[in-house]
Amino acid sequence: MRFEEAYSGNVFIKSHPSFEESEAVIYGMPMDWTVSYRPGSRFGPARIREVSIGLEEYSPYLDRHLDDVKYFDAGDIPLPFGNAQRSLDIIEEYIDSLMDQGKFPLGIGGEHLVSWPVMKSVYKKYPDLAVIHMDAHTDLREEYEGEPLSHSTPIRKIANLIGPENVYSFGIRSGMREEFQWAKEAGMHISKFQVLEPLKEILPKLAGRPVYITIDIDVLDPAHAPGTGTVDAGGITSRELLASIHAIAESDISIVGADLVEVAPIYDHSDQTANTASKLLREMLLGWVSKRP
Amino acid sequence: MRFEEAYSGNVFIKSHPSFEESEAVIYGMPMDWTVSYRPGSRFGPARIREVSIGLEEYSPYLDRHLDDVKYFDAGDIPLPFGNAQRSLDIIEEYIDSLMDQGKFPLGIGGEHLVSWPVMKSVYKKYPDLAVIHMDAHTDLREEYEGEPLSHSTPIRKIANLIGPENVYSFGIRSGMREEFQWAKEAGMHISKFQVLEPLKEILPKLAGRPVYITIDIDVLDPAHAPGTGTVDAGGITSRELLASIHAIAESDISIVGADLVEVAPIYDHSDQTANTASKLLREMLLGWVSKRP
Amino acid sequence: MRFEEAYSGNVFIKSHPSFEESEAVIYGMPMDWTVSYRPGSRFGPARIREVSIGLEEYSPYLDRHLDDVKYFDAGDIPLPFGNAQRSLDIIEEYIDSLMDQGKFPLGIGGEHLVSWPVMKSVYKKYPDLAVIHMDAHTDLREEYEGEPLSHSTPIRKIANLIGPENVYSFGIRSGMREEFQWAKEAGMHISKFQVLEPLKEILPKLAGRPVYITIDIDVLDPAHAPGTGTVDAGGITSRELLASIHAIAESDISIVGADLVEVAPIYDHSDQTANTASKLLREMLLGWVSKRP
Amino acid sequence: MRFEEAYSGNVFIKSHPSFEESEAVIYGMPMDWTVSYRPGSRFGPARIREVSIGLEEYSPYLDRHLDDVKYFDAGDIPLPFGNAQRSLDIIEEYIDSLMDQGKFPLGIGGEHLVSWPVMKSVYKKYPDLAVIHMDAHTDLREEYEGEPLSHSTPIRKIANLIGPENVYSFGIRSGMREEFQWAKEAGMHISKFQVLEPLKEILPKLAGRPVYITIDIDVLDPAHAPGTGTVDAGGITSRELLASIHAIAESDISIVGADLVEVAPIYDHSDQTANTASKLLREMLLGWVSKRP
Amino acid sequence: MRFEEAYSGNVFIKSHPSFEESEAVIYGMPMDWTVSYRPGSRFGPARIREVSIGLEEYSPYLDRHLDDVKYFDAGDIPLPFGNAQRSLDIIEEYIDSLMDQGKFPLGIGGEHLVSWPVMKSVYKKYPDLAVIHMDAHTDLREEYEGEPLSHSTPIRKIANLIGPENVYSFGIRSGMREEFQWAKEAGMHISKFQVLEPLKEILPKLAGRPVYITIDIDVLDPAHAPGTGTVDAGGITSRELLASIHAIAESDISIVGADLVEVAPIYDHSDQTANTASKLLREMLLGWVSKRP
Amino acid sequence: MRFEEAYSGNVFIKSHPSFEESEAVIYGMPMDWTVSYRPGSRFGPARIREVSIGLEEYSPYLDRHLDDVKYFDAGDIPLPFGNAQRSLDIIEEYIDSLMDQGKFPLGIGGEHLVSWPVMKSVYKKYPDLAVIHMDAHTDLREEYEGEPLSHSTPIRKIANLIGPENVYSFGIRSGMREEFQWAKEAGMHISKFQVLEPLKEILPKLAGRPVYITIDIDVLDPAHAPGTGTVDAGGITSRELLASIHAIAESDISIVGADLVEVAPIYDHSDQTANTASKLLREMLLGWVSKRP
Repeated sequence: MRFEEAYSGNVFIKSHPSFEESEAVIYGMPMDWTVSYRPGSRFGPARIREVSIGLEEYSPYLDRHLDDVKYFDAGDIPLPFGNAQRSLDIIEEYIDSLMDQGKFPLGIGGEHLVSWPVMKSVYKKYPDLAVIHMDAHTDLREEYEGEPLSHSTPIRKIANLIGPENVYSFGIRSGMREEFQWAKEAGMHISKFQVLEPLKEILPKLAGRPVYITIDIDVLDPAHAPGTGTVDAGGITSRELLASIHAIAESDISIVGADLVEVAPIYDHSDQTANTASKLLREMLLGWVSKRP
Repeated sequence: MRFEEAYSGNVFIKSHPSFEESEAVIYGMPMDWTVSYRPGSRFGPARIREVSIGLEEYSPYLDRHLDDVKYFDAGDIPLPFGNAQRSLDIIEEYIDSLMDQGKFPLGIGGEHLVSWPVMKSVYKKYPDLAVIHMDAHTDLREEYEGEPLSHSTPIRKIANLIGPENVYSFGIRSGMREEFQWAKEAGMHISKFQVLEPLKEILPKLAGRPVYITIDIDVLDPAHAPGTGTVDAGGITSRELLASIHAIAESDISIVGADLVEVAPIYDHSDQTANTASKLLREMLLGWVSKRP
Repeated sequence: MRFEEAYSGNVFIKSHPSFEESEAVIYGMPMDWTVSYRPGSRFGPARIREVSIGLEEYSPYLDRHLDDVKYFDAGDIPLPFGNAQRSLDIIEEYIDSLMDQGKFPLGIGGEHLVSWPVMKSVYKKYPDLAVIHMDAHTDLREEYEGEPLSHSTPIRKIANLIGPENVYSFGIRSGMREEFQWAKEAGMHISKFQVLEPLKEILPKLAGRPVYITIDIDVLDPAHAPGTGTVDAGGITSRELLASIHAIAESDISIVGADLVEVAPIYDHSDQTANTASKLLREMLLGWVSKRP
Repeated sequence: MRFEEAYSGNVFIKSHPSFEESEAVIYGMPMDWTVSYRPGSRFGPARIREVSIGLEEYSPYLDRHLDDVKYFDAGDIPLPFGNAQRSLDIIEEYIDSLMDQGKFPLGIGGEHLVSWPVMKSVYKKYPDLAVIHMDAHTDLREEYEGEPLSHSTPIRKIANLIGPENVYSFGIRSGMREEFQWAKEAGMHISKFQVLEPLKEILPKLAGRPVYITIDIDVLDPAHAPGTGTVDAGGITSRELLASIHAIAESDISIVGADLVEVAPIYDHSDQTANTASKLLREMLLGWVSKRP
Repeated sequence: MRFEEAYSGNVFIKSHPSFEESEAVIYGMPMDWTVSYRPGSRFGPARIREVSIGLEEYSPYLDRHLDDVKYFDAGDIPLPFGNAQRSLDIIEEYIDSLMDQGKFPLGIGGEHLVSWPVMKSVYKKYPDLAVIHMDAHTDLREEYEGEPLSHSTPIRKIANLIGPENVYSFGIRSGMREEFQWAKEAGMHISKFQVLEPLKEILPKLAGRPVYITIDIDVLDPAHAPGTGTVDAGGITSRELLASIHAIAESDISIVGADLVEVAPIYDHSDQTANTASKLLREMLLGWVSKRP
Repeated sequence: MRFEEAYSGNVFIKSHPSFEESEAVIYGMPMDWTVSYRPGSRFGPARIREVSIGLEEYSPYLDRHLDDVKYFDAGDIPLPFGNAQRSLDIIEEYIDSLMDQGKFPLGIGGEHLVSWPVMKSVYKKYPDLAVIHMDAHTDLREEYEGEPLSHSTPIRKIANLIGPENVYSFGIRSGMREEFQWAKEAGMHISKFQVLEPLKEILPKLAGRPVYITIDIDVLDPAHAPGTGTVDAGGITSRELLASIHAIAESDISIVGADLVEVAPIYDHSDQTANTASKLLREMLLGWVSKRP
C-alpha cells in the first residue's frame, strides 16, 4: 500500500498499479538528519523517480524489459524530521510488513543510516544473512561525536548483529584507522578501492546464501556522482558499478533485498547523479528481483 | 572562549581577539535537522563569516564603525547531528554561560528552532522579557507531524513561556489558520505582510523593556533572500529590513540579545543571501549592542 | 480523468481524488517548442507541483483554506514534441471536454502559445468573453519569422477572435512598435509597466462579464521570477501580483478560466519561481474558482 | 556565405574570412524542438564557438595546427522555432548548396534530428555512402509517440535511405528492444558500449568508401558531458572519443562530412561539455577535412 | 574599426556595419584584475552582447527604435591580463582616437577602474566636464592595500582631475568613513541610498554642461543584479534605474560619453544581470546618444 | 607565523598550532590576475581549507594519519590585487623565510604563475634542483600577448633558471607547437597525456636529488576537476593522480617543496574539485613531507 490515502508524489517509471500483485516494492526513506557533512539526500528518492521518465524501459545489458518484473512504488515513508530513533523504528516496522507479505524490498535513501533498520528486519527472516556493501566509506563507527545514531555507523551495527564475517565491503577508500583495524580483527571483509574484481572472487563463496545488498552512491567517483553529501576522489566509474550489478545478477546468490542511498540532488546541477541512480535501479530490478529466494 | 582548543574556522570580520574584553559574542548554531523542507542552514554561519571579508567596516546608515563595538566571534557551537534535544540543551547551556558573564548574545542559525533555547536562557535573567520576531512564518505550531521539536514551533514555545502578550511578530505571510487563530485569542501581536510601519507603532510601547529580537531571513522576499529553506513570495525588501533594524536602534527599548537564522547557502548561487546577512549583522552590531541594559 | 491509466507524475497539493466531484481542474501544458529564446517551460508544471508540498494550505490574505475548494489535478496533457499544431489541437479538445463538464479550467504552462487553444475553447461557450492578460510582452505578433504558431502571437490570435476591445493587457514592457500601434488602432487596452492600479480601474467596467485570465510569470521582475525563458528588467513585484489576484477576487467579474505560464525551472537555482507560481496558483484557486458563472 | 548580411554572432576560433577559399564550412543547426526530454541544445553551437577562444590552435595529438586547414564558420542557420519539417527542409537546402560548391560540411547541433537532412543531402552526391554513428542511443525509432519527426529517429531514416548494412553505430547503451531487434534483422552494425575497439575493426572494411560521421556528445559518459539533454551512465571517456577521432583520421576511409550534436550548455555549470566539444571539433577539422574525396 | 582583422566575437544587437557612419561606438573593456573581491567581470561585455539577441529593438519607454540611432560595436579592447597600468593606457589611447573622430563612447566593463582612463580622455576634450556616477560604492579610495590602481579608486582619481565639485554620486551605500568625509570636505556631491529623486534635483543645475555618466551595475540591489563582484543589500530596483536613465534623457544636459560596468556573469545562473544590462544599454543608446554636443 | 595579527580565516584540518614545531608550512597564494581565460582561483585556497573539515584524517592508501606529520597552515599570503610583479616578490620573500627556517613549503594556488617565485626561492638553497610538473598545459611560453608575467610562462621561467634538462613535465595535452619544439630542442622532458607510467620510469633517474613538485589541478580530466580556469578534455583520473603521488612517496627522491594550483571553486557546483584538492593535499602531507632532505 501507499503511505497516504491520497498519495500525491510521483512514482518510478512503470510502477505496477497493484501492491498485491507486485514481487518487489520500491520505497523512499527521505531521512538526512544524522549526516555530519552536507544534507539533502531527503530529496534523493523524489528526484530519482522524477528523472526516471527519461529512462529507457529496456536494458541492452541484460536483454530484459521492465515489463518482465512486477514492482510497486509505494512512495516515500513519512518520517519525523530530526528524530532519528523514531524514523528508524518506522522504517523497520514497514520492512517487517513487507517481509511478512513476501515482497522484495528495494529502498531508496536518504542517508545510509536508513539501511540499518532494513537489514535488521531482513535478518529476522533470514538468520543466515550476508551483506554486500559498496561504498566509499567504511561506515563502521560505533558513534559519531557521541551519537550512536549516525550515518557513519550502519555497517558496524549490522556487523555486530549478523557477525562481521558475514559482511563484505567493496570500494572503500575512506575511514578511520580504527575502523579498518576493527574490521581486520573482527574478520570482516573489506576490499579497498576496487569493486568488480574482488566481488567476482567473493560471489562464488556466497552461492546459495541469502544476501542483502546496500549501495552508497558515493562508491562512484565524484566525476560520476557529484550529487551526494560527501564527495571523495578516487572512486569507481559508473561502468564498473553497472558491471558489478550484472556480476551479482549472474551469480548464484539469493538476493533478499537491496537499497541505493545518499543521492543528494542539490549538489548536481545536471542531475546526472539522479539519472545514474535511476538507471542503476532499473538494472537492480531487472537483474536481482528474480533472484529472490 | 572558542569551542575548541585549536579552533580552525573563520570568524566574522573585525572579531575582537579577547572574549573577556568583548561586549557581545557571536556564535553559530549549525543545526538544520528538524526542518520540514529544504535543509542546509547548518552551513549558514560559516558562509556568512566567509563573505564578511567583502563587507565595509563602516556603516553610512548609522555613521558608526565596527571598531566602535567590541565583539568576539566564538565560532560554531558543536552540535550532535540529528539529535534535536541534545542540541537544544547544549545551546541553552552555552547561552546561560554568556548571560552569566554579561555578554550580549548574537546568534547565527541554523534553523529557527535554535532560537528557542536562547530565548529560554535570556528569560531566566529577564523575567520581563518581550520578543520581537520578524519572519515569513508564524512558527506557532505545537508540533509538526507529531514532533514537538520542529523548526515550526519556536515562537509558540516562547509565547507559552513568557506569555503570548509579550511576543510581537512582523512580516508574517504564511501559517496555518489555527496558528493565526491561536495568536488572536491568546493576545499575541501579529503584523501580517508589513514590518517597518507596524514596528514603528509598537516600539514606543516597549520603551524601557528588555527585548530579544529574532530575525528569520525569510522575512525577506525570495528576490532578496533566495538562499533559505522555505522561499515564500510577497516578502519585504532588504531596504525595509535595514530600515527596521535602524528603527529599533533609534527606539527606547533595551536589547538583551538577538539572532539571525535560516540562511542556507546552497540555494543561492550568487551568495547574495549570505552577503545580505553579513550586512544585517553589521548593522545589528553597530545599532543594537550599545542598547543592552 | 487523468491522461494515462497509470498516471505516475506528482499532483498539486490537496488535489481532490475525484475528477467528477471537483469544481476546477488543474492541467499542465508542457510545451515549449515555439519559443524564440530559452526553452525549458515544459518542466514548469511538474516542478510547480513538486514544490507545492512546501506550501501552506491556508491563505492569510484571503482567510481561506484549500479544503474550501475542490479541484482535481489531471497531470500534464501528453503533447507531441515539436509539433505545434497538433499540440494546440490536443489542448483545445481537452478544454472542450472540460467546458462540457462544467469544470473551471486552471492551466499551467508551458509557453504562452498554449493559452490560445484554451481561450478559443472557452470562447465557444462564452461569446461575450473578455480576457485579462498580465505579461511583460505584448504577444501581439501575427507571426514570428514566418511562423504563425509562435509564443509571441497568442494575444493577437485571441484579439482577432473575440475583438481587440475585449482584451486587456497589463504590465507590458516589451514589444515591437507595430504591436503597440496595432493595439492602439484596434482599440485594445494596454497598460504599460503597471498592473494593480490600472486593473482596479478596469475591473468595474467588466462587472458581470465572463472573463478569462492569463498570467505570464514574466510580468514579474526577473528579481522575482528568474526562472523563465525571457527575463526583462523593470517588472512588478510578487507583492503587486498577489494584490492583483486579490483585487480580481474581490471584483464583480465572472471568471471562466485562468492560466499561469512560462515558468522554466532550469534557470532558477533556488526554485523561487516555481515556489512563487505555486503560491499564485493557491491564491487563484482560493480567490477565483468560486467566482465562476 | 553567412546567413545574414550583418552577421552578429561569434565564430569558431581561426575561422577563415573567405567562404570561397575555405575547404570546410562550419554551421550551427540550433534546433531542439522535437526532443522528448530536456531541451537547450539550440544554444550548443553558440556556446561551443564562444569557449573556442580558450582553445589552443595546435593539436599535440595530430601535430597539426588550425592554420593547416581552411574553414569558414557560417554561423547558425536561421530555423523556424517549433516547425520541425520546415527546419529540416532549410537545412537540407543549405547542405545541398554546400555540396554543390564542393565544401566539407561540418555541422554543430542542436538535437540529433538535424543530422537527417544533412545525410540525405550528402547521399545525393555519394550514393555509395556509409555512415559512422557514435551515440548512447540507437535513434532507430520510426516515430516517437506518433511523431515521425523526432530526435529518436534520424538513424532509422538514414538506414532506410542508404540501406541498414551501410550504417555503423558505436557506443550504444540505450534503446528499445525493438530497435536492437530491427538493427539485427536488417543487418545494421551496432557495437554496444564500446567505440574504439570495434571501430578499429570496422574501419578497414570501409577503406576507400565515402563516409559521413555523426557524433552525439552523449556517447560520452555524463561525467565527461553533463551538458546534454539525456544523460546516461556507463559511457565512454573523452579520451576514448579523442582516440576514436584519431583512429578515423589515420584510416583509409574517405570522409564526406561530419557533425557533433546535442550539446546543451545550461545543464553544465563549468562549461566542460562545450569546451570538450570545441576540442573535438578542432581534432575533426585537423584530422578529417584533409580526408575528403 | 574593430580591434582585430578578423574579429570573431559577437556584437550588440543591431550594431551598424560601418564605423565611419556611426554616431556612437560600443566597446568592451574586459579587465577585472584589480578587483579586491570576486573577479569575472572580464566576461561581462561578451555575455551582454550574447543575450542582446533576446532584446526587443523598440523601447516602449522612449518610443524609439534602435534603427533611430547609428552605433558600431567594436568588440572588446584587447588588454594585457594582469597588467593594470598598460591596460589603462591602451583604453585611454583608444578613447582618444574615438574622441578625435567625434564618436560618442559607450563602454562596457569590466571592473570600474576602466572608467578612469575613459573619463580622463573625455576631459581632454571637455575641460568643463561633469561626472554623474551611480554606484553602491564611493570608489573614492586613494589606494587599496598599497595599490593606487584599484577598482576602489576611479571616482577619487576623476575628482582629483576635474575637481570634486564636478562629480555627482548617487545610490551610494558602502564606503569607508574617510571616503564620505573626504567627499564632504571636498565639496563633492554624494546622494546616499537614493538615485532618482536627488538626480532630478541635480540635473537642472547641470543644464548645458558636458556630462559623462558612469553606472556600476551594483547600484542595483542584489535582487536585481546578482551577477556582479560585490553584492550589497539595500540597493535600488531596475525600475528606478530605468527611470533615472529616462530622467537624464529628458534633461537639458549634454552627454559626452557613458559606461556600464561590473557585470560578472558567472554569479548569475539565470543571466538576469546580463539581460538587464543589455536593456539598460538599449535605453542609453536611445535616450542619450542624441544628446551629445 | 600567520600573516595577520588576528588571522580570521579557516585553516586546513589538523593544522598544528605552533609554527615553530611544524615541519611543513601550508600557505595560500590567492592570485589570479594574469590568467588569460577564467579567473577565480584566488578563492581556491580558502575553499580547499573549508571543505577539509569533511576529510578523514587517516589515509588507507598510505596507512598514515595526519597526526603523524606536523604542519602549520599560515593562511593566505596577502597579495596586491592586479599587481603581478609585487605579488611574485612578496611570495618569493615569504618562501625565502620558510627555507631559512628549514620548513617544507606546501603551497596552494591561485594561478600557476605563483609557482615561479616559489621554485626560484627553493633553487637558491638547492642548486641541484629538479622539478616535476603535472599539468594539462606546457606553460612554456616566454610571454602571453606581450606580458612576460603570465600564467602560461612559469615552467619556461624555471627551465631557463635551472636548465631545461632538469624539468620533467607529465600529462601535457595542450600547448603551442613552438612550446613543444622548444622543449624538445632544449632537452626538457615532456610526457604527453600520461602521468603514472612515464613517472615510474623517470623517478629512479632522480634518486637522491632534491625535487620540487608542482601540480596544476587541470592535469585531471574536467570530469574530475570541473572547477578550474581552463578545462581541457582527455586528462587523467583522480585515481591516476593519487597513484602518482603515492609512486613519488615510495621513490628515492628527496622532496624540497610542492604545490597544488588552479582550483577555481565558482565553476564547480558540487565542490568536487576543492574536495579532491583537499584529499590530494592530505596525501602529499602524509607521503612527501617525511621525504624532505
